[in-house]
Amino acid sequence: MSLDLGPHPDADGYGEALELDRNDPLAGFRDRFVIDDPEIVYLDGNSLGRLPRRTPGLVREVVERQWGRGLIRSWNDGWWELQLEIGDQLSPLIGASPGTVIISDSTSVNLHKLATAAVEGAPGRSKIVTDDLNFPSDVYVLAGIAETLGLELEVVSTGDNATAEQSVIAAIDEDTALVSLSHTAFKSGFTYDMTAVTSATHASGARVLWDLSHSVGAFPVDLESAGADLAVGCTYKYLNGGPGSPAFLFVRQDLQEELNNPIPAWWAHARPFDFDLDFEPASGIRRFHTGTTPILSLAPVAAGIADVADAGIDAIREKSIGLGEYLLRQWREHLVPLGFGLGSPLDPERRGSHVALTHDEAWPIARAMIELGKVIPDFRAPDSLRLGLAPLYVSYLDVHTAVQRMKEIVSTGAHTRYEGATSAVT
Amino acid sequence: MSLDLGPHPDADGYGEALELDRNDPLAGFRDRFVIDDPEIVYLDGNSLGRLPRRTPGLVREVVERQWGRGLIRSWNDGWWELQLEIGDQLSPLIGASPGTVIISDSTSVNLHKLATAAVEGAPGRSKIVTDDLNFPSDVYVLAGIAETLGLELEVVSTGDNATAEQSVIAAIDEDTALVSLSHTAFKSGFTYDMTAVTSATHASGARVLWDLSHSVGAFPVDLESAGADLAVGCTYKYLNGGPGSPAFLFVRQDLQEELNNPIPAWWAHARPFDFDLDFEPASGIRRFHTGTTPILSLAPVAAGIADVADAGIDAIREKSIGLGEYLLRQWREHLVPLGFGLGSPLDPERRGSHVALTHDEAWPIARAMIELGKVIPDFRAPDSLRLGLAPLYVSYLDVHTAVQRMKEIVSTGAHTRYEGATSAVT
Repeated sequence: MSLDLGPHPDADGYGEALELDRNDPLAGFRDRFVIDDPEIVYLDGNSLGRLPRRTPGLVREVVERQWGRGLIRSWNDGWWELQLEIGDQLSPLIGASPGTVIISDSTSVNLHKLATAAVEGAPGRSKIVTDDLNFPSDVYVLAGIAETLGLELEVVSTGDNATAEQSVIAAIDEDTALVSLSHTAFKSGFTYDMTAVTSATHASGARVLWDLSHSVGAFPVDLESAGADLAVGCTYKYLNGGPGSPAFLFVRQDLQEELNNPIPAWWAHARPFDFDLDFEPASGIRRFHTGTTPILSLAPVAAGIADVADAGIDAIREKSIGLGEYLLRQWREHLVPLGFGLGSPLDPERRGSHVALTHDEAWPIARAMIELGKVIPDFRAPDSLRLGLAPLYVSYLDVHTAVQRMKEIVSTGAHTRYEGATSAVT
Repeated sequence: MSLDLGPHPDADGYGEALELDRNDPLAGFRDRFVIDDPEIVYLDGNSLGRLPRRTPGLVREVVERQWGRGLIRSWNDGWWELQLEIGDQLSPLIGASPGTVIISDSTSVNLHKLATAAVEGAPGRSKIVTDDLNFPSDVYVLAGIAETLGLELEVVSTGDNATAEQSVIAAIDEDTALVSLSHTAFKSGFTYDMTAVTSATHASGARVLWDLSHSVGAFPVDLESAGADLAVGCTYKYLNGGPGSPAFLFVRQDLQEELNNPIPAWWAHARPFDFDLDFEPASGIRRFHTGTTPILSLAPVAAGIADVADAGIDAIREKSIGLGEYLLRQWREHLVPLGFGLGSPLDPERRGSHVALTHDEAWPIARAMIELGKVIPDFRAPDSLRLGLAPLYVSYLDVHTAVQRMKEIVSTGAHTRYEGATSAVT
């Protein structure tokens, strides 16, 4: 069989998509990305963002001039400060002050560092609270800390997104050292009320650590007005930093001198080039550095952040909601009759920038979308198709096309040939 | 003043250098590196190796085709396995079996992970032994672990390189969980007898973790024949992986199921894409993975390793000794009269691939070498000039030129104008 890959001028919602695209103030930002194959509808920017057009030149500059020609001298000519400099570029997107964010390591390592620092900074409190909406990897890292330090990890069953806040808040008590949650849930896209949870955490004398991986660059976050203590997050999703680009960490200014970095390597030393055998922590956010950061993967993060900053996080959020609401209208009309449910909150205020549709045959449908439909979603076991709506390069027409192809695949049974396929890694 | 930057055809040792270069079987490998400015004598490859000629093309392929065009699909088309694949390419250089090495994180994070795993795997033993020759950052990381877990860290004063082994071995007792040392010392280049220390450690029932950062790619290491338990190391020195390229870790096969990864993030899970809330460790070396690795910085490590493998580690070592011995002859004749001492072992068998010369005015001399002499060494406080002899691209004539320029600088007092300069980062 073959699919008609052209647009569907007579399908419901096509004219609406064109109209929405015409009125989209961010429409021009699509040209800031390398889009070699315009037939592909890429809805996985929540997993790996697209390549910004400025990035290949930036990487060439770093490799060929800075490394090849500058050699070791480039450490003095900018590399040494790059983690902080890009951290300061990122900070307005998450409501953080200058000097509170660095780009370093992976999200997992940053989580390990900050969560360990928080629980060690709360002697006498023996519990870490997280929930079942969290990215499982975060739960594993927290469990690792709990095991090493002899603490209890409580993984709250939220049951339903709508009551997640109450469930988590009910678990926080005077024994709680740390509450660690994903701001936007990786699977459903549910977004916590950061202020409410942070306040409740502080009322019990505990600290809160937010994983912003699925929010940053798509959802305005205001860490400091929420009173948040600590945060980590990823730069390769909506920030388009590239595969495995180093993550970020945030430590609120007044906690920087109070908490200790549990992996205090030389970049965290007050005078690393004295090579003293005794560790003396640097002041400020440098104290949470560890070792040398991968410069080729770090530099492109700056280009990714710049595009987001140029568009403006509020405009991005507005388009994100627009895309999501349009998708839900299309889902109701075309996909509900084919057995698709909604794994995400209906309320756009409580939803990040991806929408999870559920279907018993989600896995073969995802394969068919990629291989027959030229639409790239991602699949999350057992039954979720995640559609990432990265506002900088996803158009309303993309969403329309994706829904029409899903409809055609399922209504013709084209996906059934993929039923036996083994699960892909992503 | 100005320096004569030409060769010194009448200076002692010039003819010898030319002759040695003519007979150098590795001379052709210099062409495998990007050398834009052939006037520069680069003796800092022990800090940041040069850019391999194949790397810019490799990075372009990763950025433009794999990321830009392949998008998320590239995780299935090779990225997911890249850490292990490059680890297996590296393993013959350090005497490790396939499946025992991965490339990941920074050396500091890897040290934290493996050292924590080792001490947690030795309940009832409360001491970590290291020494004052170790890279101070390693000592900070070990001290961090000791503090978190309530252990003792003993930093052995070696006093003199020649007796370092005895001093360390004397400190190992039945209370020792872990001995963690740099195989080749960052400052002096002194190289431990890995077999002797490993055997003594095992005789006390402890485990040993070697930091191979200043050995790998220049000094043949045979971890498994020495019986070593654990190792970490850097890929941006003699392996020419690029600024901050991810480090490696080694866990001997029989320990892989016995030790636990203290930062058990999703890459270390047996089935990461099931997104179970419970952690179940992967088998084999994958168990020591953490989060997502920076692919743009990871891929070039393969190119760097390939050049080393093509040259052959034994041929590299032979040239390394040749360069060192030639440098020492030149030092004796031209530099000893000017107040230069030797901070490295005289015996080439106990010396890695860099030579430290000492001088009371080492810092201004280093500045003058870079700014007037076009020779790039590095400086290590308080009085060491490190001359890195990376055998793949450093020639005997480079060494001759460096010595002659040092001689001219110090004998004319040209360095004195840099006396007030502040210390650079590297």
